[in-house]
Amino acid sequence: MKKLINAPDDLVGESLEGMALAHADLLRVNAAPAFVARAQAKGRGKVALVSGGGSGHEPMHGGFVGRGMLDAACPGAVFTSPTPDQIFEATRAVDGGAGVLHIIKNYTGDVMNFEMAAELAREADIPVEGVVVNDDVAVEDSLYTAGRRGVGTTVLAEKICGGAAEAGRPLDEVAALCRRVNAQGRSMGIALSACTVPHAGKPSFELGPDEMEVGIGIHGEPGRRRARLEPADRVAELLMQPVLDDLPFKPGDDVLLFVNGMGGTPLIELYVVYRKAHAIARERGLNVARSLVGPYITSLEMAGVSVTLLRLDEEMSRWWDAPVHTPALRWGA
Amino acid sequence: MKKLINAPDDLVGESLEGMALAHADLLRVNAAPAFVARAQAKGRGKVALVSGGGSGHEPMHGGFVGRGMLDAACPGAVFTSPTPDQIFEATRAVDGGAGVLHIIKNYTGDVMNFEMAAELAREADIPVEGVVVNDDVAVEDSLYTAGRRGVGTTVLAEKICGGAAEAGRPLDEVAALCRRVNAQGRSMGIALSACTVPHAGKPSFELGPDEMEVGIGIHGEPGRRRARLEPADRVAELLMQPVLDDLPFKPGDDVLLFVNGMGGTPLIELYVVYRKAHAIARERGLNVARSLVGPYITSLEMAGVSVTLLRLDEEMSRWWDAPVHTPALRWGA
Repeated sequence: MKKLINAPDDLVGESLEGMALAHADLLRVNAAPAFVARAQAKGRGKVALVSGGGSGHEPMHGGFVGRGMLDAACPGAVFTSPTPDQIFEATRAVDGGAGVLHIIKNYTGDVMNFEMAAELAREADIPVEGVVVNDDVAVEDSLYTAGRRGVGTTVLAEKICGGAAEAGRPLDEVAALCRRVNAQGRSMGIALSACTVPHAGKPSFELGPDEMEVGIGIHGEPGRRRARLEPADRVAELLMQPVLDDLPFKPGDDVLLFVNGMGGTPLIELYVVYRKAHAIARERGLNVARSLVGPYITSLEMAGVSVTLLRLDEEMSRWWDAPVHTPALRWGA
Repeated sequence: MKKLINAPDDLVGESLEGMALAHADLLRVNAAPAFVARAQAKGRGKVALVSGGGSGHEPMHGGFVGRGMLDAACPGAVFTSPTPDQIFEATRAVDGGAGVLHIIKNYTGDVMNFEMAAELAREADIPVEGVVVNDDVAVEDSLYTAGRRGVGTTVLAEKICGGAAEAGRPLDEVAALCRRVNAQGRSMGIALSACTVPHAGKPSFELGPDEMEVGIGIHGEPGRRRARLEPADRVAELLMQPVLDDLPFKPGDDVLLFVNGMGGTPLIELYVVYRKAHAIARERGLNVARSLVGPYITSLEMAGVSVTLLRLDEEMSRWWDAPVHTPALRWGA
């Protein structure tokens, strides 16, 4: 295992310390329980957004904390759910009196712990709504999750709902928007290599030199099938086809096309995949109105790519375009 | 070789096409000779900034084309210098009458071809100044370069000089600023793994499971020595020590600390290195006034990290903070 770490037990905490030092203007880190929160939170009377999940998917979620996106993020150990206590404390810390939206990737442990945290919050008179993102079309029930997994659409939901919350929209409206983003977003990914969880010390699975895993999950869960590695254009087709078939995208629809790197795949390759994915969307008559290309929801050093397509409505486009200032996404601010 | 590409010969061109599609608001791509230019260039009477070099270092340089940074970038084949013709055509395309600054990473082929392009431009009555960046403290004369190599400081020079050019500063002033950034910036890197140039099909060198290359170049040139992989904190010391020793940084100096990923190293690890590098800078009495953390000058999928320290003066800080809108760096716009 070759990693730039000190000890596996210290990885998440030390990385959070580094983040806090590098982005002191944007965020602060609470050490115990661990969460990242906006430097200026509270007292603004706006709906607060809280997300979280296992570490190892950076910049998700801590890198999305800041103006116009998340108010707090709760990192678990690598690929391990945060605890209910952690989520509750983060929720309490950022509640500004207008309630809190939990954005949860569908992963059994995350869903359970966010639900318990929401109960604790409600007992403390903090209104909480939870939205589970389940956009991965690859597999219906996977190793760790009942139903579809939550992947790339989560990034888009956090940005779009963050924009609406920043503009003062009430909790029920922001939650409804989040459900709509989830309903209109679809994703699928492939991996060319596994990644190594520091505590495990060896790759979670092995792929042959000519193999790829089609429909991989962000924790390295098995996908639809193992296949022979194909050229990038064919990979783009393999990913776009199930995504397009799953949602009745109609000619003329505005879409956001998000090509995401899993961590170890260089940007030069992501743009090659984007090129073909864009062409496929155009062939279907879709209007690629917004784009995002880069490693935003990763699996440590895994090589691979995922594609997310979101059917946009006017409101989503407006909040997507709204100013955002976080370590990983920033514009208009 | 596991890569998301179609054919090695098509990689650079297809990736540029993807970039142009994803960032149509910002940039356009000229196919032959290949260069990336701002969507709205010319006719603004501002100094134009042109950089370039081998592909494989993305987002450098194409990802830095846009308002407040580069006017054009000339990508060569992977790890191969762009041609004089390519650089000349890009220079001519973006010259707005106030002259053009060439920002060149010290690499023998790049320096030669940029010089030839500058000659062609001067013959066409376009004033050109060239500044060679040579900030890598690791080795004095390497496999491909006389003197020190140009690495991380290039990113900072492009941003800072881009800010000054956008504000209408004349060519001699922007060139002098660029020389000052180079004079006050120092970098060093290590690699945990090699990368594979698509045309070669196999890694450029082999590192044992416990080895790292200390002082690596961005093309995988040999460094100072091969050593046993050490914990992240020790790696940060190995990198910061030569950087700090090389330039008389004084207690109280404002510095920009840039921790750069080489491509295959996940963000969670970069923040661990940043944490220690920040502590070392503080121990020396330096004031870390600005930060940048992420993969900005990469070597395809190489795992590794480099550290760049820039001693800031008031003017540099001002232009660093100025609005920028490019695919890879964006703020205030």
